[in-house]
Amino acid sequence: MKSSTLFVLAATVVAFSAPACAQFAKPEDAVKYRKNALFVMQQNFGRLGAMATGKAPFDAKAAADSAAVAEFMSKLPWGAFGEGTDKGETRAKAEIWKEPAKFKEYADKMQAEMTKLAAAAKTGSLDNIKTAVSATGGTCKTCHDAYRKD
Amino acid sequence: MKSSTLFVLAATVVAFSAPACAQFAKPEDAVKYRKNALFVMQQNFGRLGAMATGKAPFDAKAAADSAAVAEFMSKLPWGAFGEGTDKGETRAKAEIWKEPAKFKEYADKMQAEMTKLAAAAKTGSLDNIKTAVSATGGTCKTCHDAYRKD
Repeated sequence: MKSSTLFVLAATVVAFSAPACAQFAKPEDAVKYRKNALFVMQQNFGRLGAMATGKAPFDAKAAADSAAVAEFMSKLPWGAFGEGTDKGETRAKAEIWKEPAKFKEYADKMQAEMTKLAAAAKTGSLDNIKTAVSATGGTCKTCHDAYRKD
Repeated sequence: MKSSTLFVLAATVVAFSAPACAQFAKPEDAVKYRKNALFVMQQNFGRLGAMATGKAPFDAKAAADSAAVAEFMSKLPWGAFGEGTDKGETRAKAEIWKEPAKFKEYADKMQAEMTKLAAAAKTGSLDNIKTAVSATGGTCKTCHDAYRKD
């Protein structure tokens, strides 16, 4: 390896010497990871929401692309709700760690609806998208109401 | 649509009434989007870097999963470098908007290397991963040196 590359890697790898968490170097990284993944998801879902409600013109290609990204992103946050990540810059309620089965149920439901939304967007039908956006948005709200602070 | 769902959508959709940018409601959203996407990518790439340098034990499944996420994420930031997004909470240098072709060349190179890394990780060979991590890390550094403030 070139030394320049090793330099880049070193900066990244330092993070992994801390033993606190297998996947994240520090709890703050996990919190940031799930918030960042959810923001990218929300931005893409928001594009579909705008089309579904007539706030943005319908663009079948953009809808399918955004839905595919939203679906992919919907799978990423959950590994970042590990032990010790209930503190810091987060609106996550303590109930998440008290009721992990229920939290997982909500997370799974959202992912399932996001997959249906991606399939709906691929059909190119705005009506299909409207139905799927509504169902998916409902799963966002259910989980936020239960597990996110105002 | 149920009113509860419409409420969720309304919060999302408000963002799209601003005419400034087709894809993002405000320049700040674009800045946040690209930073968030890059952070998620970096965290996944970092896991491979840790394995490649022996700082973390090699786990072929985790490596393949992380590389697949990093590859996907590598495609997302670039649409968020639109006009007017050179301000605010960003370390992006003005050169990005002065030399768009060169910036795109660097971005494309990184994505190409990230795709090779995902393929390497699928082989299950740590040696293949080391080679690809080194090449990919080099493209990160080249672009950061040219276009990111310290």
